[in-house]
Amino acid sequence: MPVVTNGRVIFNEIPEGYPEPGKTVVYDEAETLDLDSVVLNGGILVKTLVLSADPYMRGQMRDPSIETYVAAFTLGKPIYGYGIGVVLRSESTEYKTGDHVHGHFDYKHYQVIQENNLSNLRGTIKRHPKLPWTAYTGVAGGSGRTALYAWRTFAQAKPGNTVFVTTGAGPVGSMVIQIAKSEGLRVIASAGTDDKVAFVKEIGADVAFNYKTTDTATILAQEGPLDIYWDNVGGETLDLALKYAARYARFIECGMISGYNHKEGHQMKNLFEIIARRITISGFIVGDLATSDLVKEFEEVIIPRLAIGEFRFREDITEGLEHAGETLARIQRGTNVGKTSIVVGREDS
Amino acid sequence: MPVVTNGRVIFNEIPEGYPEPGKTVVYDEAETLDLDSVVLNGGILVKTLVLSADPYMRGQMRDPSIETYVAAFTLGKPIYGYGIGVVLRSESTEYKTGDHVHGHFDYKHYQVIQENNLSNLRGTIKRHPKLPWTAYTGVAGGSGRTALYAWRTFAQAKPGNTVFVTTGAGPVGSMVIQIAKSEGLRVIASAGTDDKVAFVKEIGADVAFNYKTTDTATILAQEGPLDIYWDNVGGETLDLALKYAARYARFIECGMISGYNHKEGHQMKNLFEIIARRITISGFIVGDLATSDLVKEFEEVIIPRLAIGEFRFREDITEGLEHAGETLARIQRGTNVGKTSIVVGREDS
Repeated sequence: MPVVTNGRVIFNEIPEGYPEPGKTVVYDEAETLDLDSVVLNGGILVKTLVLSADPYMRGQMRDPSIETYVAAFTLGKPIYGYGIGVVLRSESTEYKTGDHVHGHFDYKHYQVIQENNLSNLRGTIKRHPKLPWTAYTGVAGGSGRTALYAWRTFAQAKPGNTVFVTTGAGPVGSMVIQIAKSEGLRVIASAGTDDKVAFVKEIGADVAFNYKTTDTATILAQEGPLDIYWDNVGGETLDLALKYAARYARFIECGMISGYNHKEGHQMKNLFEIIARRITISGFIVGDLATSDLVKEFEEVIIPRLAIGEFRFREDITEGLEHAGETLARIQRGTNVGKTSIVVGREDS
Repeated sequence: MPVVTNGRVIFNEIPEGYPEPGKTVVYDEAETLDLDSVVLNGGILVKTLVLSADPYMRGQMRDPSIETYVAAFTLGKPIYGYGIGVVLRSESTEYKTGDHVHGHFDYKHYQVIQENNLSNLRGTIKRHPKLPWTAYTGVAGGSGRTALYAWRTFAQAKPGNTVFVTTGAGPVGSMVIQIAKSEGLRVIASAGTDDKVAFVKEIGADVAFNYKTTDTATILAQEGPLDIYWDNVGGETLDLALKYAARYARFIECGMISGYNHKEGHQMKNLFEIIARRITISGFIVGDLATSDLVKEFEEVIIPRLAIGEFRFREDITEGLEHAGETLARIQRGTNVGKTSIVVGREDS
């Protein structure tokens, strides 16, 4: 194995609104690495195969003095996220060459993970032969688990209930729609392009609309009231969902992308409906929800359904780490189509 | 029994902001009643002893075309609320002369409740000899039950937890403070006058402040994070409670008085904390929460504590139904001190 250029995506500037490629992050080729001799200190050398690009990463592109649930990226250092790679060399008893590992990955081609940082990994990962690694950054990984675990924990779903799913074409939303339909619910789903709306209909939504060209309030007034609201957007849509909620509605707060790039907040007119309609609103982080039953259901029911195509998904794959900046901007503006990931390397090259 | 004037409080005009005495409601003495001969049609004739005046009644002073959880008052007819009275005559097998009854009462001196309206009553009511009837419109009645039932259902209270109680001097808030202190929690409480703050300290709050003269954000930044937030006010205070919430905080949404007279809503900046801090927000109506265990605990633990003064309360009593308009305005502005009720009549006169 030769000396290689270890291309990296560096956090360069805190964005004001949407992140800007080449400004917020820059692709840097200054680092080289001798794959044979780089010091591992009891750790492992990993070749990055796939990196996940996720909306929540916007929250890490901030002034580190602001505290929130995820650490801020460090200016001048590589950004990071969820990744999957293959072990090239190992000095650890936990991992051997050829193992696939996943977890916290820097946005770079090769990861040297020292012994004391091995706990940032989530361990080894196996792939269903009919699913690509990219699926494991989405529906077969965290997004699918988010959908299943939170649905089971908070939805109290009954056949015939009406659920409104926002960002219905995304990896979480599309899984929620398919789980809800498999349980006999009526699904209203929104998405941001006509193409996404078509996909949402294909996977079973009873009512699907483009929220950029159709008035959400009109749809909810006609098709509500909502027994369950799956929130990926927050802001005005959350306020409208409160207005058109059924009594005892369950609001599952998965994300609020509408607020990530707008700090001034939203003028909420319908918060009193929380009381009037006895609504329960639950925020969560998927890691808190895993139980052995849910893990088992995911592995034994959801993964096989994805593998045989009974549950469908779409992927938005970027080839090449050098395009990460555009990808990160795209997911904040919602112009991606399906779960977004970056293919960084291949096992056979 | 003679012919009497049956003074009534009539809904006269839908208010824009705060209700105005003599305008929103008017006191009317046009109706007379022959107590001996008024036709009961199988129902009962009740002399009103006490009427409850409550913040939520603002929501009934509205255009009836707007749907919400309580019916709108009817222009030209008496307003109504929770009341307690004594039966003067009965043609019903359910009630006899001398019984005390409670439930839906018009704001008037005498109620003729026809047989088909008897279901609007909640039945007979007994008074602890050491508590006045007025207490049963508040701490010994719905307010106390609201505090206990919602606390038991949603608070998941652990000794050492920090709870922030808004409108801490009110009938619900003061009961929440005393229940929380009896369970070993640390209590932060707000109220709107220095006199109320003094009362809140007397009943055990560890930190008490006047939100009109002290910055709520400063207090919460020093004294938080909040494991439990008891919300009686909504709006900006709710937004700040989100900002200073602990992980897994429980928000109990009892009321949002700050919004009742301001329709434009509030610019919420911290809703994303619902997700970041895994917060659960629960709206409720007390009637949904009653279980036999909670009813028993209220009767056998809370009422005796109130009767012997172990749990304290303050009352704001209006003598005379003709002053109802001022009372209803006062409770919207928060210038009342303690649970507000109107003594309409006495048993011995």
